[in-house]
Amino acid sequence: MVGIRDVARLAGVSTATVTRALRGDPSVTAATKAKVQAAAVQLGYVPSAAARALSRGHSNLLGLFVPDIVNPFYAQVAQGLEDRAAEERYHCVIASSHLNREREQQLLTSFQDGTLAGLAATTVGSDESFAAALTATRGPLVLVDRRPRGFNAPLVRTDNRKVTRHAISRLFAMGHTRIAMISGPREFDTACQRLSGFRMAYQDAGSFLPDSYIRHGHLGEAGGHAAMRELLALPQVPTAVFCFNNLVTVGALTAIRAAGLKIPHDISVLAFDDMSLFPLVDPPITAIAQPAYEMGRAAADMLLRRLAGEQEVTDIVLPATLIERESLGPPPAAERITPPAT
Amino acid sequence: MVGIRDVARLAGVSTATVTRALRGDPSVTAATKAKVQAAAVQLGYVPSAAARALSRGHSNLLGLFVPDIVNPFYAQVAQGLEDRAAEERYHCVIASSHLNREREQQLLTSFQDGTLAGLAATTVGSDESFAAALTATRGPLVLVDRRPRGFNAPLVRTDNRKVTRHAISRLFAMGHTRIAMISGPREFDTACQRLSGFRMAYQDAGSFLPDSYIRHGHLGEAGGHAAMRELLALPQVPTAVFCFNNLVTVGALTAIRAAGLKIPHDISVLAFDDMSLFPLVDPPITAIAQPAYEMGRAAADMLLRRLAGEQEVTDIVLPATLIERESLGPPPAAERITPPAT
Repeated sequence: MVGIRDVARLAGVSTATVTRALRGDPSVTAATKAKVQAAAVQLGYVPSAAARALSRGHSNLLGLFVPDIVNPFYAQVAQGLEDRAAEERYHCVIASSHLNREREQQLLTSFQDGTLAGLAATTVGSDESFAAALTATRGPLVLVDRRPRGFNAPLVRTDNRKVTRHAISRLFAMGHTRIAMISGPREFDTACQRLSGFRMAYQDAGSFLPDSYIRHGHLGEAGGHAAMRELLALPQVPTAVFCFNNLVTVGALTAIRAAGLKIPHDISVLAFDDMSLFPLVDPPITAIAQPAYEMGRAAADMLLRRLAGEQEVTDIVLPATLIERESLGPPPAAERITPPAT
Repeated sequence: MVGIRDVARLAGVSTATVTRALRGDPSVTAATKAKVQAAAVQLGYVPSAAARALSRGHSNLLGLFVPDIVNPFYAQVAQGLEDRAAEERYHCVIASSHLNREREQQLLTSFQDGTLAGLAATTVGSDESFAAALTATRGPLVLVDRRPRGFNAPLVRTDNRKVTRHAISRLFAMGHTRIAMISGPREFDTACQRLSGFRMAYQDAGSFLPDSYIRHGHLGEAGGHAAMRELLALPQVPTAVFCFNNLVTVGALTAIRAAGLKIPHDISVLAFDDMSLFPLVDPPITAIAQPAYEMGRAAADMLLRRLAGEQEVTDIVLPATLIERESLGPPPAAERITPPAT
């Protein structure tokens, strides 16, 4: 393999000069830079990520900030990020704020000393002081899953609206007209996009969506459980429920079981985010699977490209997939209407 | 609240001297140290962790090294660690080696600059160069879940042997005589302890344990799936299987379902480690639940005590609990023998 010594020999300069020339150090004259670059091109020399890191003086540590490491979605994102980073000899640390804005900001503050070469983040904060803390970590920033309002860092996400619209249209095709959604916090753009896809499917079907069928602001198993109980207490109980994420689904499933209802006979359940145990649940749960591992890899890739000097790194939108199992079925006979012609 | 200024005033010294005296700085005379300590005791002054961190010059960052963040056990440990650390204004970063020894050692190397005030670790490595890398991270070290051979750092773990012996004895009481175990790598002391409890239950029952009923070295869903397929291919298929951990259980369940067998009618399944979806699986899975969150809190507590100057921090063993659900039942009628009198 061609090394920095080979480039130095051919260009007739020291290895230190090669390093400085290749990173564009102003102490190196234009003539020397040209000579070094010509030698590097001639020999096909590609500085390793580790060597680049050394020459740049930043660490080989990438950070991943997640709101909740107990959510397996983020664990898979972390694994993808780690695997891609390891290929370029970067390592990763994960920090979880447990959905606590104050903790998230303090964590960011811990990294203002330049410990991290770059940061991939799914944040809970979005205000100005948070933005300042995020910027102060200095290295490049990539957003994962969602973008806080007003942030223009590149984002890797899934096509929330499109896949939700498609999945909900399946429920309408089965004859449902009373489909509810347990949604997340209104300030999460993921929640907004999934809700938007949900509303679009209602419009496509020409159905009326009562406000009571949308439960905003729910997170975690407890949130899903509470929202499902509210839905089951409505005068007109929905015949299907769409859960905004994996943990919300687990809570909703528990509430449905506690109420003695059978899935899908009494109520159909559609989850956003797959879980490895969903195929083994009674009944197996139909889910919209995000490519979480690939999202992590893509985020690492975007950071590595920024660290390699690329200025323009644009958003990446990866497709999600509807995995049909057995938790969707026609509505109870008493509620059934003729499905619209397709 | 009593502050450092109050101590300085009472002792008649500067606040800087108080700080130096309390951390045992050799530049402070014994007489001054005694005066400062007396004043601190008289006023009931407890330096805050943040103040201690400042005065000691170490960071407020604790590290948690785990082998696999996709395993929800570690995510819960992480959450407990973070919550306890946050109470003392420490923050946490998690690093996952994905069961890769080389990656683990490189990660440890990244932290030899003193970024971390202390480290809690469940490691995959155990050789000498690993031990050297671990020691070079400098801050106090606490082991979680298992101890690599030859390490004498304090450990927080669960009582693997006792709870396994108890749970397996339940299977013998139901009439099983052909109970298999999908075990982990032989170098994991957790695997050894769980296997030891398993063997003890066999001895208690006076039953013979064929070698083929112990499958060593399996990890992850893929490992559990492969081991279960091997067990199902034996001439005498076991009537019950004990899975060494949560992900191994998921793999085994998938293999059992693929073989068209019914749990517990054809085979009983016992899991080590509970999962939030186990109650919703068909049938709900009986599991030995480790107090993962509490183990994380205890690990943080041990690190904080070491950082506060305590020299002797001893092992903590927390109890696990058998949660009986529906995946254990009597063996198939053809295999049934009279349960031993109890």
